[in-house]
Amino acid sequence: MATIKPSLAKGTRDFSPAEMEKRNYIFDTIKQVFAKYGYQEIQTPAFENLQTLTGKYGDEGDKLIFKILNSGEYLAKVPGNMLEERASVQLIPHISEKALRYDLTVPFARYVVMRQHEITLPFKRFQIQPVWRADRPQRGRYREFYQCDVDVVGSDSLLHEAEFILIYHEALTNLGLTDFTIKLNNRKILTGIAEVLGKPELIVAMTVAIDKLDKIGLDGVITELLDRGFSVDDLKKLQPIIQLQGDNIDKIRQLKRVLEPSATGLLGIEELETVMGYVERLTGDVALLNRFVDVDITLARGLNYYTGCIFEVKTNEVTMGSIGGGGRYDDLTGMFGLKGLTGVGVSFGADRIYDVLEELSLFPAGTRQSTQVLISNFDKLAELYALPLLYKLRNAGVAAELYPTAAKLKKQLSYADAKRIPYVLLIGEDEIQSGLLSLKDMRSGEQRRLTEANLIAHLTES
Amino acid sequence: MATIKPSLAKGTRDFSPAEMEKRNYIFDTIKQVFAKYGYQEIQTPAFENLQTLTGKYGDEGDKLIFKILNSGEYLAKVPGNMLEERASVQLIPHISEKALRYDLTVPFARYVVMRQHEITLPFKRFQIQPVWRADRPQRGRYREFYQCDVDVVGSDSLLHEAEFILIYHEALTNLGLTDFTIKLNNRKILTGIAEVLGKPELIVAMTVAIDKLDKIGLDGVITELLDRGFSVDDLKKLQPIIQLQGDNIDKIRQLKRVLEPSATGLLGIEELETVMGYVERLTGDVALLNRFVDVDITLARGLNYYTGCIFEVKTNEVTMGSIGGGGRYDDLTGMFGLKGLTGVGVSFGADRIYDVLEELSLFPAGTRQSTQVLISNFDKLAELYALPLLYKLRNAGVAAELYPTAAKLKKQLSYADAKRIPYVLLIGEDEIQSGLLSLKDMRSGEQRRLTEANLIAHLTES
Repeated sequence: MATIKPSLAKGTRDFSPAEMEKRNYIFDTIKQVFAKYGYQEIQTPAFENLQTLTGKYGDEGDKLIFKILNSGEYLAKVPGNMLEERASVQLIPHISEKALRYDLTVPFARYVVMRQHEITLPFKRFQIQPVWRADRPQRGRYREFYQCDVDVVGSDSLLHEAEFILIYHEALTNLGLTDFTIKLNNRKILTGIAEVLGKPELIVAMTVAIDKLDKIGLDGVITELLDRGFSVDDLKKLQPIIQLQGDNIDKIRQLKRVLEPSATGLLGIEELETVMGYVERLTGDVALLNRFVDVDITLARGLNYYTGCIFEVKTNEVTMGSIGGGGRYDDLTGMFGLKGLTGVGVSFGADRIYDVLEELSLFPAGTRQSTQVLISNFDKLAELYALPLLYKLRNAGVAAELYPTAAKLKKQLSYADAKRIPYVLLIGEDEIQSGLLSLKDMRSGEQRRLTEANLIAHLTES
Repeated sequence: MATIKPSLAKGTRDFSPAEMEKRNYIFDTIKQVFAKYGYQEIQTPAFENLQTLTGKYGDEGDKLIFKILNSGEYLAKVPGNMLEERASVQLIPHISEKALRYDLTVPFARYVVMRQHEITLPFKRFQIQPVWRADRPQRGRYREFYQCDVDVVGSDSLLHEAEFILIYHEALTNLGLTDFTIKLNNRKILTGIAEVLGKPELIVAMTVAIDKLDKIGLDGVITELLDRGFSVDDLKKLQPIIQLQGDNIDKIRQLKRVLEPSATGLLGIEELETVMGYVERLTGDVALLNRFVDVDITLARGLNYYTGCIFEVKTNEVTMGSIGGGGRYDDLTGMFGLKGLTGVGVSFGADRIYDVLEELSLFPAGTRQSTQVLISNFDKLAELYALPLLYKLRNAGVAAELYPTAAKLKKQLSYADAKRIPYVLLIGEDEIQSGLLSLKDMRSGEQRRLTEANLIAHLTES
């Protein structure tokens, strides 16, 4: 077989030990919070039947689904005209019956429907797995990336919404972030606004426009709204709402006034109040809401999907897109024939959180996965001396290695350095005779002599 | 969009919370041992460039690789005759440039070659990820399954072989297994035997035949060897070796005598002796080798691949194929142009280990991922009372849930039962007034009254 220069598939990444350690730190921290709130992990397969995925993500989404070629003589029964006409798109269902997971939501819906008779509702699950999209790769956008979703289905209690705020708060705080905003909106408020303006049919146009406030400013939004069919009169009514001032209570007071004529709009407000009331009652901390939660009616994420509360999380410590988001959807499983199951969920943008922690140097210095001590190996005698000690260290729970062959000190120290091993135990003739071993601290460079028992005690404590 | 009855792709599985908990228990236990021996985790992408995988697994393997269809107008530049002739196999490289990972070894080799200038050797890595094969699904054989590999490259020290024996021993012991056998052989011994018989060219035929000893018995092996070109004289020489008696030391003594004329064979024996010497010196436990290690020259796993020691692990507690195996290979990265890098590694068969632990009821009863206490919810007043307590419990590290809506006791207990939540906290009018809460132990059915402080103390201790 010919030798080929190896490369990664476009848009994919390897993760080195150092990267894995940091990624696992993020996932473990988040998982721990999920578990404390009663969410349990599930996993679904990397590929699904193509028809399970097709039509769920819009036409553009369908194109970005990676299809898996059928095995064997996959062309045998293909309609001849499709081959003649090179009808790439039409041919797909004839030569591919499987496709890679595009998100975790559709497989979760499939899971719930298939197991509806064994699942006890409400069903609280989290799922952390890679998804694949045939997007054009660019900085920060990959063809393989992890999603980290947490959802509950089968309960309309707004306690869940409140708990998602606390889950974000606790997970991000545990990761070391101190200044972040959980933006909160409600689809019913957006519906209410469009109703009050007398243009319910323009709700999508309206929300798409005001969602851009951050990017194009108020003038830009106004221009776009006029283009999209709103009148100058409408804008007069709209302007005070899209630039709400004050804290959450002030904003809600202003919104209530404007939304008076819309029952749906008022219901949306009531939902926000209930959610915030839950947070306050749970934590007993009135200030928490004002510090971390921001009612923001320009938030229109996933409008066609969400039916109640909508969340989005941003860090204020570095410039970065949203690091999380989600909301309530009233019909998750309808696509698979199970109607009327409501759900609410959020997700964490693990790749972005990784970049944020990196930029803020928030990853813990202590290596959790790496070896704690490397025992040097200078000759056969030292090796024989070291072997039982190596075993004792590991039995005491210390991650330990013996350099596998006799080698120069410099080489062994480089190895420890590259692997960020904090201690090297030097065993030479002198140490063997005296029984006092030399422990070198790789960070400070300091060296101390210890008996075997003291060494083990020292390393199990550190 | 039409409603479709959802189904899993053939040969794939979902993992429920209960299954995930057990799988994570296995992976976590094994990972902890890997880390203690200085192995670090890496991950590689689910798909590789097709040419990275093609030709690495033989012709049969190539057919079992899942290919990913190119995006867009993938038929545009395909040679017309291939379409006319419906040349499915020849067409593959024209319409597919990516394929799903088939094992973890080839991606690991690619990783090492691509990062050869940043990696410090010896490089000790483990990798636990799914792989995909277009095999015909059957009982216990899936199209998506996890591999769990641990390898070191860039060191010829036999200390690693010895440590893999200890890694198997420790991981399986930690999982609760007590009776298992780590079979040990060496490719050089097999070469030596073929040399001694004067038929080095028949080594593959020979090993394939004697590998079947367990299945077809001695007579079957003899018939097959005669069929494959061995003489009756050869068999006379071979018979005492393939049915070696005694403990490992006895077996090695007998082998030494027979392999006297073969330098390669004697080197193989010396390697086994060195490995066993390391295990003995490390553990100081002479008996361990006789209890768990079995020199078995009928073991011929991966013959074309391994060049030194070969391992295979079987449990003796239930009937099950091998639950692990591996060996040393002298040319892992040659396929990608990096010659002369030796490596040795083993893998754990996680799916089979799962079945073994299930059959022996060895999964720990304590739920690690599940909620520890469910707070009942009978009405709004009780909910208001429960909310701050819920928050306190979680802050004390207790995984806790409040039933999200007021509901009948029976329904709430069913929920706790289904989720295997060990405690339900009942809060009614009486409890609110007295401040003495009723904690129901779901296993014993017992109920006790506790103050809030005692409750938290009780749950953080249990």
